[in-house]
Amino acid sequence: MVKVLFTFRLKEYLQESLIEKFPEVHFIFAESPEQKELETANIIVTYGADLNPEIMDRAKALEWIMVGSAGVEQMPLAAVQEWGLFITNARGIHKSPMAESVLAHILAQKRALPFIYEQQGKKEWSRKAVLTELNGSTALILGPGSIGAEIGRLLQAFGVYTIGCNRNGRVSEAMDEMISFKELHSKLAEADLIISVLPSTAETKDLLTADHFRAMKETAMFMNFGRGDLVKEEVLLAALKNEEISLAVLDVFESEPLSPENELWSLSNCIISPHISSLSGKYNERVLEIFEVNLKKWLDGKRDLINLIDPSKGY
Amino acid sequence: MVKVLFTFRLKEYLQESLIEKFPEVHFIFAESPEQKELETANIIVTYGADLNPEIMDRAKALEWIMVGSAGVEQMPLAAVQEWGLFITNARGIHKSPMAESVLAHILAQKRALPFIYEQQGKKEWSRKAVLTELNGSTALILGPGSIGAEIGRLLQAFGVYTIGCNRNGRVSEAMDEMISFKELHSKLAEADLIISVLPSTAETKDLLTADHFRAMKETAMFMNFGRGDLVKEEVLLAALKNEEISLAVLDVFESEPLSPENELWSLSNCIISPHISSLSGKYNERVLEIFEVNLKKWLDGKRDLINLIDPSKGY
Repeated sequence: MVKVLFTFRLKEYLQESLIEKFPEVHFIFAESPEQKELETANIIVTYGADLNPEIMDRAKALEWIMVGSAGVEQMPLAAVQEWGLFITNARGIHKSPMAESVLAHILAQKRALPFIYEQQGKKEWSRKAVLTELNGSTALILGPGSIGAEIGRLLQAFGVYTIGCNRNGRVSEAMDEMISFKELHSKLAEADLIISVLPSTAETKDLLTADHFRAMKETAMFMNFGRGDLVKEEVLLAALKNEEISLAVLDVFESEPLSPENELWSLSNCIISPHISSLSGKYNERVLEIFEVNLKKWLDGKRDLINLIDPSKGY
Repeated sequence: MVKVLFTFRLKEYLQESLIEKFPEVHFIFAESPEQKELETANIIVTYGADLNPEIMDRAKALEWIMVGSAGVEQMPLAAVQEWGLFITNARGIHKSPMAESVLAHILAQKRALPFIYEQQGKKEWSRKAVLTELNGSTALILGPGSIGAEIGRLLQAFGVYTIGCNRNGRVSEAMDEMISFKELHSKLAEADLIISVLPSTAETKDLLTADHFRAMKETAMFMNFGRGDLVKEEVLLAALKNEEISLAVLDVFESEPLSPENELWSLSNCIISPHISSLSGKYNERVLEIFEVNLKKWLDGKRDLINLIDPSKGY
């Protein structure tokens, strides 16, 4: 009997739905991997941060890890590769909430929502707001995977020209144009919006430098919704203080949580989102939607799982 | 020679562009209709509020009024009809900025932007935000004209089911379903978003009553981006105080500007936007885009103008 260990809390109705759909599976609904069932579990469903090499050593029967997040950088990928484990993630479920957050922040700025909220606090009727339009802008999207493509698709609906940027410039969905990382610097001057949803890999770490920010339009908006190590905090701070761009919206940081002393908090041209852009009341439902498709395949002896990760690449 | 009188300030480069494109036209760029040229002008281009019956009486040569706004309720429509004047408006240019404002407010709420801004003010890193998704919602759009259709189109891109509502239920763009005003009450319980972009007409005045608000979901968001007389302020106030809906976002009011004493300012479930949702840095450029198409037709003797208004109906 296939044994599945959940290491995070799942609402009861979701547990019941799984048991009903897969009567041949033995589910253990725990809230951490520190279970005696760890030793016999064939499949672990985790958010990713709780699997260390020690835990992995005890998981003798493990064949497949389902990670309920889009990044897998917290995973012991070396062990996954060495032991020939399958590893899948929840790539795709973040695309809707994250793209909505990205669009929310962009539109809020264009349509003066911070001004509106502030005026209301003062009960002051003033129409002296500077409102602009997203329509007609150009966006450069770093990391046009499933989240980037969803952002691109929505931006295109708003009449935005989308330039995707990845390692090799390989064609991607919802991008009017594609460039490679090497061409990034030369394209920055065309972009009104620079949006990163890149995962953390050896190639993306410190990808953006001071030179890149100097190449951006002074009116540009930079959004980091991928991983905090895309750009050194000191580089970002300098670019903002020198007003090399008009605004940064950051959902990820070099070190999280951001300390109360961090200068970023008080910069008027920086919005701090506490790494919540992928949160959604529908989160676990969506993790299970992906997991269930794969579990069906798994029980049928198929190993062409969706969202399969190559542990040597990290995506 | 056709004489065109502008009654609002137009930037010089826009004036020059018109003169260059239409050398056969005599343009008078004024900032009010109180000009001696009023008596000989064939065409008046106005924002709409400055034409009273007195002014109209003096405009003996007038044949066509171009109103640079979407509503024409400030216009002396009876005189327009009696004298057989052409009247056109700028319907369509508002659609992009207004739809962007509507989407900005919806997404900001779903993705917890007010929470994010507030936490930043306190330099507090907290992920205890309630984030939901627009994806999968149902929207009821009152007034699916060009603005409503643009809102519908964008909502559909976000995976929203759109129900359009107009006088007769006549099919409209970007609506998954259409209902008439008569069916409105029975459909309200299905909607997560109720968005009005209705103009002010005899039929839309006080269209929404206390009964309607009681029929809405407690979680519903009501947005009035049309005209303030759609619902009596006392009705709205009661619905919000009784928490019959979760939020109102208002861009228009019975009386504008909203007085500092108005209770709406301080309700936690009400967002006050000071009638700025159609503003855009690109506004006059867009008014001229429409006007130029019509002026070309006019000079060619054609009278099938775009955005022609029926003065007996007011739209």
